[in-house]
Parts: sequence; C-alpha cells; structure tokens
Amino acid sequence: MSEGSLVPETRVLAVASHVVSGYVGNKIAVFSLQSLGCDVAALNTVQFSTCLPETFLARYVQWTGSKVSAQEITDLYQGLKQSYLDDFDMMLSGYVPGAPALEAVGQIGQELKRKAKSKPGSFFWVLDPVMGDNGNLYVAPDVVPVYKSLVHHADLVLPNQFEAELLSSIKITDMPSIGRAIQVMHERYGIPHIVITSVSLAHPDHPVSSLSVVGSTMTSDRRPRAFKIVFPAIDCYFSGTGDMFAALMVVRMREAVHNHHTSHVSVGSGQQQQQGLLMERESWLSGDEVDALDLPLARAAEKVLASMHEVLTKTAERMEEGSVSKARAQAAAEVDVEVDGVEAGAEAEKKRVHLLKTKAAELRLVRHLDSLRFPKVEFRATRL
Amino acid sequence: MSEGSLVPETRVLAVASHVVSGYVGNKIAVFSLQSLGCDVAALNTVQFSTCLPETFLARYVQWTGSKVSAQEITDLYQGLKQSYLDDFDMMLSGYVPGAPALEAVGQIGQELKRKAKSKPGSFFWVLDPVMGDNGNLYVAPDVVPVYKSLVHHADLVLPNQFEAELLSSIKITDMPSIGRAIQVMHERYGIPHIVITSVSLAHPDHPVSSLSVVGSTMTSDRRPRAFKIVFPAIDCYFSGTGDMFAALMVVRMREAVHNHHTSHVSVGSGQQQQQGLLMERESWLSGDEVDALDLPLARAAEKVLASMHEVLTKTAERMEEGSVSKARAQAAAEVDVEVDGVEAGAEAEKKRVHLLKTKAAELRLVRHLDSLRFPKVEFRATRL
Repeated sequence: MSEGSLVPETRVLAVASHVVSGYVGNKIAVFSLQSLGCDVAALNTVQFSTCLPETFLARYVQWTGSKVSAQEITDLYQGLKQSYLDDFDMMLSGYVPGAPALEAVGQIGQELKRKAKSKPGSFFWVLDPVMGDNGNLYVAPDVVPVYKSLVHHADLVLPNQFEAELLSSIKITDMPSIGRAIQVMHERYGIPHIVITSVSLAHPDHPVSSLSVVGSTMTSDRRPRAFKIVFPAIDCYFSGTGDMFAALMVVRMREAVHNHHTSHVSVGSGQQQQQGLLMERESWLSGDEVDALDLPLARAAEKVLASMHEVLTKTAERMEEGSVSKARAQAAAEVDVEVDGVEAGAEAEKKRVHLLKTKAAELRLVRHLDSLRFPKVEFRATRL
Repeated sequence: MSEGSLVPETRVLAVASHVVSGYVGNKIAVFSLQSLGCDVAALNTVQFSTCLPETFLARYVQWTGSKVSAQEITDLYQGLKQSYLDDFDMMLSGYVPGAPALEAVGQIGQELKRKAKSKPGSFFWVLDPVMGDNGNLYVAPDVVPVYKSLVHHADLVLPNQFEAELLSSIKITDMPSIGRAIQVMHERYGIPHIVITSVSLAHPDHPVSSLSVVGSTMTSDRRPRAFKIVFPAIDCYFSGTGDMFAALMVVRMREAVHNHHTSHVSVGSGQQQQQGLLMERESWLSGDEVDALDLPLARAAEKVLASMHEVLTKTAERMEEGSVSKARAQAAAEVDVEVDGVEAGAEAEKKRVHLLKTKAAELRLVRHLDSLRFPKVEFRATRL
C-alpha cells in the first residue's frame, strides 16, 4: 500500500453540484478523485444543504441553498486562467442546473480542448450528461438540446439507460437495441468512448438480480467495439452512485491508458509502432486492431465496478445491521419532532421515515478508502 | 493498514471557505477529515477560484468568485435541520468573510452546543479564529469583537501567535508571555482547550530554525496546563497549513479522548471513577490530576504535527526537484502570456513568477494520504 501505487499525476477540473451533507455530485466525486491521488479543482455549480438531482421528483425531498449562475461559473474559470491554473489533464462535468449554466460549462470544456489541440491526448473530457433516470427527466427540457450540442466535444460520455435513449433517440429494450444506441452515439456525435451505466434488462445471461454496464470505444471509422460487465444488483437504493462511477472512471481510464502505454513501450515491439503511444493519441483512441475486450475502457470499467461493488456491499451490510448512525439519526429526529411540535401526525412521520432512510442510504465511502484505492476485480468484461 | 485503524465514527460540520483550485479552507479541511474516516458536512462560506485569506494582502493575488451571505449560511443549516441531518459530533469553523456571516456561524455553533447540553461531551466545537497573521489583520476590524464574543462557546480554539495576541491583549515576545496569553484566554473566556499554532520565538531550547505549537487544557478552576512541541521549520511558505492543522486536530482530539476513555475503561481502576468517562464530560475536560504532558490535547497535537511535518517535507522536496507540475505550469503560463499579449513586460513577468511560486507551494496532500492516516510521531510534548 505504498504511495507508489497511486495513479499517474493528474490534474482534474471537476464541475458539479455541492451538497453540504451527503455524498452526491462533487461531494463524492472530489473525494474519490483525491483519494486516488488526483489534484482536483472543484467548481461547484450549486450549494444545496442536501438532496440530489435523482430525487428532485421524490415526494418528501427538501433542501435549501442556491445555484451558481452561468456568469459566476465563467468568472471562476477566468480566475483560474488569470492565475495560470488552467493546466488540466482531464475534466469531469456532472450535474449543472439549467441550460445557460450548462452552456457556460460547455464553453470551458471546448476551450480546454482547443488549447490542447497541438498536443493530442493531453486533455480528456469525461462528460456525464445528467438529465434523468428511469424514464423521468429531472432537468428543464431545454437542457437536453444543450447536451446534444456538447457531447461531440467530449472524449468519454457516461449516460445511464434513459440518457442514452435521449441522446440516441433509440428505445432500449434489449441488448441489440443497446448496441444500436451505442452505434448511433459513435456515428452521430463521434463520441470516442461511451459507457452506459446501470443497464437493467431481461436476457438469458443476464439474470434479473443483475445489472450491467455496457461500454464501447469506437474504431477509426466510428464502428462500435462494445463490451458488457455484468454484476450482482444490491436490493437497495443508494444516492450518488452515478457520480462515484464517473469520478472513478476519470482516474481509472487515465491509469489504464497509462498502463497500456507503459506495457507497449517496454515491449518495444512492432505493435508499439503500429499502435503509437496511446496517451499521445487524440482522445486516447486505441488502434483498430485492439479487440473490445482488450480496451483500456474495459480495464477501467472493471476496476471502477470492483470499487463500487465493495463500497455498496459494505454500505448495505451496515444498513441491515441497524447501524449506530441510524440509531443516532432516530434520536436526533425525535428531539426535532419534539421541538417542532407542529409537525406531529402521520404525514410528518412518513416524511421523517423517508428522510432517515435517505440518510442511511448514503454511501459509506470515507470508511472504505481501501475499496476505492485497492479494489479486487471480480467482474470481467465480456462480449455484448 | 486495515480499515480498522480508522478513528471512531465522527460526524463533523465543517464551515469554511471553498477554493476551486488549491488547498486551503474547506478544500483541505474536508479532505483531511474524510481521509481519516469522518462523515463531513461541508458548509462553504465562499467560492473563490483560488487564493486564501493569508494572502489577501499580497501584491499579485487575484481571484474571482463570490461570498455566501449570512442568510444563506443560516438557510443551509435550517435545511440540514429539516432533514434531520444536524446530528453532529463535532464542528470545525474556519474562515468566514465578514461579521454578519461570522455571527450566523456563531449561532449554529451555539445552537448545537445547546442541543447537546443534556448529554455532556456529545458535541465539541473547534474554532479557528481566522483574523490575521504576522501582525496583519486580514479581516474587517468588526470581525474581531465577534470572535471575542464567540470563543467562550467553543471547546478548542486554535489561534496563531497574532490571533492569540488579539484575543488575550497580551503582546507575545517570549515563552513566559505565551504562558500569560494562555492564562488570560482560559480565565477571561473559559476556553477549555487552546493550541497556539506556529509560535516563532528566540529561546535557549528553541533554535531559530524551529517552530513550536503551545497547547493547554485548563483545570476545573481555569488554571493552564501548558505544553509545547518544538519541531524543525521548513524554509518555505506553504498555504493552507493552518486549515490542515485545524482539521487534523478535530479528528486526533476525538481519537485521543476516545483512546484515553478506552484505556481507562479497560483498566477499570479507581482512576476511572475519579476521572469519569472523559468522552462524557463537558468539553472532554481532563480531571485536575492529569498532568500537562498526559493530556489528550498533547497526544492529538503530536500526531497532527507528525502528519504535517511529513506532508510539508515531501512537498518541499518536490519543489526543490523542479517538479513536473512546475514545468507544466510554466508551459501553461507561456501559452497564456502569448494569448494575452497585453500582459507582456516586467510587471507581468513578476506577477507570473509569483503565481507559479504560489502554485508550487500548494500542499501535496492527495499524494501523501498515508502521511495523514499513519504518521510517525517524532516530536513530543515537553513542559512550557
């Protein structure tokens, strides 16, 4: 566990929401990135007390706080530039509230891409097109076209199943339709790398108690090279999983490309010349001779899922134990209910129970740092 | 390096500034706390692109961003309360811009103290009275009386030498005057625990190339129990050291009190009864029979300084190496200077060099996680 096992030095610009309490958006992404040794510039698009885009539609959700305007986002980036702090290797963009703010973030991504033009591979943009989930849009409708105009600038896009449908205009009902959605996204937008997170489908080799991610790195003529990784579902809702997945993909993608790079350099074979140095190729796009199952994207996704599965399993175990935190939350809640006597009654009780459950479902990331840093890969990429 | 070596489960409310790039305020405090296993609610009082209170007076400093108003701070805390998320074990308050915002933070601290009244030791407030350094005030003058009105609610206060002078009205010139300043702070404000950070004095057993921290936990009749820890100075300015010190003190203080608690419980001696369970005593105040050098505060400070010394040493080594980051910053800067041709000339060059130096002095915390988590204690507390 020496510091030597850290990923290559990486300076990341992370743009997403900030919550005071809980682990979603930048709150979980920044810690995940830092734990793995990245130098992170964290540009927060909102500061909310708690809560998350995923639950904006939930009945009892409540939060306070404020959004950062498009102008403020631009100003913060200008501040970095003026201080020579815009030398980013990677960018991760997540939840951005509203179309104007998203456009401002898009400008930043595009400017960083332009700046890196003369040094292929020196900047890599991971874009999480946060729009909705499970058939529900939880951003304003005018955000969708902005994402459609931005994704072709990104190097890796991480839609969930619903967002992949929005981007590809293909209804995903089975594995072949997933394949078509990926094909459309490579072809229409020229997105080099795609991972569709949390795919839930009935399929012979995909038991109902499983989930999968489906990834693909396009070839030079924009054909998909798709793989899937199937892993056991945990029967529990956790918040922040998408943001954690995205942050870990940033680090593990760079690490996988670096390792690929290194192993090919050390072999010094004909393959190296054919392949070129992957880290110095535009969008870290593997040569056409590389098989789907040998992609750095597949290696990265395997490692990310290993970390996620460990943290989720440990969080769920703790929830079942009827944890100390839950007991304490309960105690705190009781005190509050006494104080706010007006909230008595069945409705208040339902709300309280919902909020306590939400709290218990927070990922216990900070207690399981080793699962982030040194995960044991169990679930391997297979052919789609 | 098992997860079992984590500090006790601790939920902390951290209130301080946020910078997009760099490691000061909550940006360094939240990561330090999380790395050691704390569940942190991070309430950010500003979002600046970069920069820090310590350098507000520096010539070339520039930043963009905005402050969070007193009302927003109050609203964010109300949001936590409504969602039953105000069950904090500890609070750390750092830089707060302006008197009204500081008053809002003070209200939160006082409310949490009141709520915990019926369970002594269940809440502990660490207050870093950020006002200035090296004889310069870098907050508005009306912030000083607000701190003076708040410190008697805090459990542990962490002034630097200048701030200790402001709070005690004693000019610190030698070790005896430090002792008097501590005595005044215990007596006048009833502050249970004090650590004066970065004391720089000429003294026989205090070589010029050394710094020290001086700490004290008061007795039941408010007499000081003072100790000092002397450690080698590193000839370099680092930003964020005060914030890192404060965050680590939060965790290590709780750990030291917990360990003290546990060891006394397991011995099950008469001393335990005499001592009571330290974690269940108001402000974790050790019984009068405990010597200065046996205080949990001394154990905590030793461990914190060990982490800090390791991280600072490694950061300085890297700076001397003429690091990759510096070279990259240089390259980035050159690109920018080309773009902004108007900035040419000697003044722009001076500014650029200053900004690059500032960047190189950022603590390399994320690359040295093990120094945070498993420091090797070298410098021990001695009598003042």
